[in-house]
Amino acid sequence: MREYVVAILGATGAVGQRLISELEQANIPVKQVKLLASKRSAGKKLQFKGREITVEEATPESFTGVDLVLSSAGGAVSQKLLPEAVKRGAVCVDNTSAFRMDDDVPLIIPGVNDEQLAHHHGIIANPNCSTIQMVAALYPIFQRFGLSQIIVSTYQAVSGAGKAAWDEMLQQAQDLLNGQQPQAQILPTGADRKHYPLAFNLLPQIDVFENDGYTHEEWKMIHETKKILFNDQDSSQIKVTATCVRVPVEIGHGETVYFVVKDHAASVKAIQQIITQTAGLVLQDDPSKQLYPQPLQAAGKRETFVGRIRADEENAGAFHMWVVADNLLRGAASNTVEIAECLVRDNLVRVPQD
Amino acid sequence: MREYVVAILGATGAVGQRLISELEQANIPVKQVKLLASKRSAGKKLQFKGREITVEEATPESFTGVDLVLSSAGGAVSQKLLPEAVKRGAVCVDNTSAFRMDDDVPLIIPGVNDEQLAHHHGIIANPNCSTIQMVAALYPIFQRFGLSQIIVSTYQAVSGAGKAAWDEMLQQAQDLLNGQQPQAQILPTGADRKHYPLAFNLLPQIDVFENDGYTHEEWKMIHETKKILFNDQDSSQIKVTATCVRVPVEIGHGETVYFVVKDHAASVKAIQQIITQTAGLVLQDDPSKQLYPQPLQAAGKRETFVGRIRADEENAGAFHMWVVADNLLRGAASNTVEIAECLVRDNLVRVPQD
Repeated sequence: MREYVVAILGATGAVGQRLISELEQANIPVKQVKLLASKRSAGKKLQFKGREITVEEATPESFTGVDLVLSSAGGAVSQKLLPEAVKRGAVCVDNTSAFRMDDDVPLIIPGVNDEQLAHHHGIIANPNCSTIQMVAALYPIFQRFGLSQIIVSTYQAVSGAGKAAWDEMLQQAQDLLNGQQPQAQILPTGADRKHYPLAFNLLPQIDVFENDGYTHEEWKMIHETKKILFNDQDSSQIKVTATCVRVPVEIGHGETVYFVVKDHAASVKAIQQIITQTAGLVLQDDPSKQLYPQPLQAAGKRETFVGRIRADEENAGAFHMWVVADNLLRGAASNTVEIAECLVRDNLVRVPQD
Repeated sequence: MREYVVAILGATGAVGQRLISELEQANIPVKQVKLLASKRSAGKKLQFKGREITVEEATPESFTGVDLVLSSAGGAVSQKLLPEAVKRGAVCVDNTSAFRMDDDVPLIIPGVNDEQLAHHHGIIANPNCSTIQMVAALYPIFQRFGLSQIIVSTYQAVSGAGKAAWDEMLQQAQDLLNGQQPQAQILPTGADRKHYPLAFNLLPQIDVFENDGYTHEEWKMIHETKKILFNDQDSSQIKVTATCVRVPVEIGHGETVYFVVKDHAASVKAIQQIITQTAGLVLQDDPSKQLYPQPLQAAGKRETFVGRIRADEENAGAFHMWVVADNLLRGAASNTVEIAECLVRDNLVRVPQD
């Protein structure tokens, strides 16, 4: 049985730490683990299956002898280092947006479109966290009834903005509870100029703005969804639009997903049944018992939770649902490690010679 | 000049206290103010224009000699006491949902449909807080371009659930920051059986569930919007649907409003201009300056703040906007007192003889 040398790039971050624990439990024979991070984090010691491993600074040479890279160190780092890793023979599963829309990079949700892994060229992209949970919930509905339109509003947890933003929000909450002025140096995004408090507030900006008034996060949800559902073919068959809002939640994105199916035989009951029958999805949908998905309950879980499924009685074929998932696990680390499991299962941990 | 005896019913609540301060600044000649509340709150002392007023227990006899009642004491209290007030000659502006959908009760947003006050029968209803800010923002667009569809997702502040729920959420936040288990006895609504923490969480339930899987809050947004826009005529001309979510914010509801206009000459620029030109609306919409509405900034203000206006390029005539307002002022006390100002202005503070 082949055993793999696995490198985790960005090992000290919020997602990186979850990549380690997900890899510990994964169906992947691991010969050796390398933990890579920025120079600043090099020398830190982390555990893998009870063994202490020293974090090394990530350089192109770090990837010599590595079979598989799980990457979550930010777009610029991926852009710079992953081609170097591929050059050295490593297959990379990347959590950043750096390569997602590249034509030769498969954008994969296991259970949805992992058959596309067969055609990888060394880099495989993990979709954006908000995209993953929405498409995971919609995909079996899409298969059964078709989809013509998706309108989504997100309620996104602060951990999606990284550990520093997360800490900032908690400090702001404590300051506000103490009657003090909250400070903001990072949120809504460190990549932009102005910063606002998020605690007890709502920020309708995730990532930077595009020229058309949409944020890059909204753009990602729209274009990634089309790429995953239609594999770059006929993506005009579906209308997708989004508004992304950051909310003062630690872990767990919520989404109100309004969707229109093509086959009007669809019903709330049939959709509920489809959700129940799909691996990785959990139906939490019983108004009589006040059962519906909540971030506090979804945090720490790998599943995508779906509830509040209702028909829009005035619009034939249109339905609402409320989707919640742990953005660090389902929306990032779990999806990445599941992609790696698929690669191992299908013997695809090799860089094809073009 | 006629001077009015004004009673505030529910004077000690979160909205009641704002009714007092709004009335202090209103264009209403006040002869006397009576502050009414439950037996439990009777005897408390509150200020009106620097004078101390003792809160009295609300009974049917409290309304003898009262011209105008501003009511925000809960649906059951309104149901019981307002007909008694009307019997005694008082005109009532009610903040609860008790009478909103009654055929002979005007449902009023000043500046939108206050001309309907002329036909009141003693009780005038203030719409639901989430309805007011959405319809206030949509109405001038509706007048100019028509509307065929509205799909709204709300991000509603805890203060809309009352002072006790608000305090509960703050305590939960402190407990979670201290690493303790949060307690929940009220939220999502004291009227239901199960209770969940709201701090650092999202609760997709506001008010109780109807049989069709929608919550009563969602039902209110749908039916009140149709009643206000179409005055009970032709309300099938517009499709309205909603998902209402409680978020851990103290004051200020957010709403992602997706709407489809009839006249496809509409553009983002034209809509922005309409918002700018409408009294009571404030356009905060400049992505290049990261300018958009936020609850922390809207709290304490009477205006409705509108931003993130964008076209859905794949759906002709469809647009997004993000609407934020102080749910206790714009969504309750300010609207109520503005209705009372309209009644005074138009000399309508009299109960018609049927």
